[in-house]
Amino acid sequence: MTNGHMDIVARAARVVDHLIVAVAANAGKGPLFTLKERVAMAELEMAELAQSIGASIEVRSFDTLLVDFTAQCGANLIVRGLRAVSDFEYEFQMAGMNARLSPDIETIFLMASERCQFISSRFVKEIGRLGGDISQFVSPRVKAQLDEKFGFSA
Amino acid sequence: MTNGHMDIVARAARVVDHLIVAVAANAGKGPLFTLKERVAMAELEMAELAQSIGASIEVRSFDTLLVDFTAQCGANLIVRGLRAVSDFEYEFQMAGMNARLSPDIETIFLMASERCQFISSRFVKEIGRLGGDISQFVSPRVKAQLDEKFGFSA
Amino acid sequence: MTNGHMDIVARAARVVDHLIVAVAANAGKGPLFTLKERVAMAELEMAELAQSIGASIEVRSFDTLLVDFTAQCGANLIVRGLRAVSDFEYEFQMAGMNARLSPDIETIFLMASERCQFISSRFVKEIGRLGGDISQFVSPRVKAQLDEKFGFSA
Amino acid sequence: MTNGHMDIVARAARVVDHLIVAVAANAGKGPLFTLKERVAMAELEMAELAQSIGASIEVRSFDTLLVDFTAQCGANLIVRGLRAVSDFEYEFQMAGMNARLSPDIETIFLMASERCQFISSRFVKEIGRLGGDISQFVSPRVKAQLDEKFGFSA
Amino acid sequence: MTNGHMDIVARAARVVDHLIVAVAANAGKGPLFTLKERVAMAELEMAELAQSIGASIEVRSFDTLLVDFTAQCGANLIVRGLRAVSDFEYEFQMAGMNARLSPDIETIFLMASERCQFISSRFVKEIGRLGGDISQFVSPRVKAQLDEKFGFSA
Amino acid sequence: MTNGHMDIVARAARVVDHLIVAVAANAGKGPLFTLKERVAMAELEMAELAQSIGASIEVRSFDTLLVDFTAQCGANLIVRGLRAVSDFEYEFQMAGMNARLSPDIETIFLMASERCQFISSRFVKEIGRLGGDISQFVSPRVKAQLDEKFGFSA
Repeated sequence: MTNGHMDIVARAARVVDHLIVAVAANAGKGPLFTLKERVAMAELEMAELAQSIGASIEVRSFDTLLVDFTAQCGANLIVRGLRAVSDFEYEFQMAGMNARLSPDIETIFLMASERCQFISSRFVKEIGRLGGDISQFVSPRVKAQLDEKFGFSA
Repeated sequence: MTNGHMDIVARAARVVDHLIVAVAANAGKGPLFTLKERVAMAELEMAELAQSIGASIEVRSFDTLLVDFTAQCGANLIVRGLRAVSDFEYEFQMAGMNARLSPDIETIFLMASERCQFISSRFVKEIGRLGGDISQFVSPRVKAQLDEKFGFSA
Repeated sequence: MTNGHMDIVARAARVVDHLIVAVAANAGKGPLFTLKERVAMAELEMAELAQSIGASIEVRSFDTLLVDFTAQCGANLIVRGLRAVSDFEYEFQMAGMNARLSPDIETIFLMASERCQFISSRFVKEIGRLGGDISQFVSPRVKAQLDEKFGFSA
Repeated sequence: MTNGHMDIVARAARVVDHLIVAVAANAGKGPLFTLKERVAMAELEMAELAQSIGASIEVRSFDTLLVDFTAQCGANLIVRGLRAVSDFEYEFQMAGMNARLSPDIETIFLMASERCQFISSRFVKEIGRLGGDISQFVSPRVKAQLDEKFGFSA
Repeated sequence: MTNGHMDIVARAARVVDHLIVAVAANAGKGPLFTLKERVAMAELEMAELAQSIGASIEVRSFDTLLVDFTAQCGANLIVRGLRAVSDFEYEFQMAGMNARLSPDIETIFLMASERCQFISSRFVKEIGRLGGDISQFVSPRVKAQLDEKFGFSA
Repeated sequence: MTNGHMDIVARAARVVDHLIVAVAANAGKGPLFTLKERVAMAELEMAELAQSIGASIEVRSFDTLLVDFTAQCGANLIVRGLRAVSDFEYEFQMAGMNARLSPDIETIFLMASERCQFISSRFVKEIGRLGGDISQFVSPRVKAQLDEKFGFSA
């Protein structure tokens, strides 16, 4: 969960009445943290964020199709962040497939903020693993957990 | 006003409570129709659409900055359509500039529907001008007006 | 083998006299089906397609360089599909390398049809695995085999 | 008519039985040469090329829709060149529109050769106008005509 | 001359020993300011910048080919800025053509800074013309001149 | 180490006073050669290249952050090659992150030469593995080592 994610969540929460942050059980390519850890981290960040901006945000994990999970939540919008680099093709393909699967669920895109255009979770992990300073890219809490994971003590 | 525009408007109208279709007075590069004509065409199309989907849609022209017009309308969202080809760079640049001018106004993007991915108003005009059949790209009413403009009688 | 592949094959078969559908032995990243299964599936689909459009289509597997296989077949054209999203870079790089290896073999590209722009075999597999309805993306026969593979009974 | 165009024509002529080089009457944005001049130039280049590679190539001008012209010619293929930079979006949009207008006419794309990836007629004109050496980008005959147009004597 | 240009100039000046800011006489599409005005504006900005960062920067206008001008200056590097959106294709094509014209002159690219990724001189002019606040995109001096040009008094 | 890499190194060596070729210890996705082998290969190629163009080139391996390694070397520039296809997004994201980590280190990009636009080390390996002729893409020395690795004798 980078500052890029936080930025999109904060802005999405202003657009909708209630926001559910969906954490994928199946995160592919050997995630650093377990599902339980990822949900717990997201909940801490979201609780703080929701309070600071006065929004209604909830965290849930899912292990089904995203459109099915959306329908189960009684939601009709999927919000995705879009950076000028790197997300466009994947996001468009996924949104196109989802529109075919569930025409009633709309996907809306928010453009990543200027300060977050180049933040990539892959690079953040790599920088963290090599002992680089990731404090500009993640919250202090997430940084502490990454440091622990990579064997750096505070 | 192509079927691509109508598709985005119809879907945007489901996402927001009230939708204002903003027609730019300054449409650049010698528009085919006057502002008055463009507003009148949009109003006819929108009235029909609003009724058919039960949505609240309004047409207004503007000759100021889009973010200023948005604020004047008391709105806080700008909705833009995005096709897999050709819109991305222009839209991202405009959204980025607008975010700097008015951080409180959010731009959300909807992906053009599959059937509208390749519809471009420039090509539609060109095809219409050369007497091609544009009935798959615009409504019968818009087609009639383009035909008249290009000197084809029904 | 998705509807996207079928669309390209059907259109390619109209462009050339005889079409060979080349199934790569080395399909990378742990394919779902064995080479034998993939060839058998392709043969069933192709037989039906060839008959319905009156074209000459053949299925062969290969485990050599694509340009070498093309030459062995006595062919001089490679046909590739191109979607607006996601294929461009990979395809261009491959075509460029192949042009260097075998200047006499030409690669021609067909643009994916509108209905197939967003169909990605990766997403189809993922949707199938999660029990989603893939019937719009593959033939009934392929769907049945994917369902069986994923442990869903008809 | 740059070496990039010649490269695509030469390769296209190997793929089809008979090739018609279509010169647009309406070339937009103030072309440097009249239609008559452009057709004459193309005919000279094509006659030489056709002879050197033993292909059947014809030059025709058209002032209708490209798909209508294609049908009038009794042709069923449109061949377009594609460079890694700059053509993709325009070409895809046009091919998509044409597929909607005339589903029976197929557009095939050839990738520009390595040596022609960066040749752009816009830049060639600009370089010629400023007295730069364009002999690597166009044939000696075309260079002579551009030089004359720009007021440089041989 | 936007903050985006200033950012690239400042960073380029750290990379090279002496930097010449080249102002094109032929700025295409009806520039807002005359060549003389543009050179004067650039000189004021550059003088200030050169002093503040202790670099050697010079402003010159040119009306020849960029590579010819570069050679006349006795320089062997052309520095260009690159934004994630919108510059890539044009820049690559130009660099490719220039490499063919003058293999000894190298083009190097600097990526626009995060804060300047979305600054486009076209949008800045448009915003200025409509009375929007462009003070985040240009220096106070340039803003004053744009305001005067557009008929806004300070 | 392909001819594409050699091209960038040779041109970069003309731009800077002293060039360090940095070989990553952690090359991801199961590299074909060990770090020691890769450094040895690079050293042989670089020695020859440095002599032929009269430049100062050094090879070093690193297992830290690239910006940290750059600082340790006392360098202030990172040079990266950019092909029209396939590098842009990854490179931009990395340069953006690095600019945040170390604002004093500048990344400059060189555009791959025309002859090297389509050379991809991934494809070169794949072609070599399948017994294809890679002599146009790598030096004879590298070809010999790849042939040995893949079990082809000279």
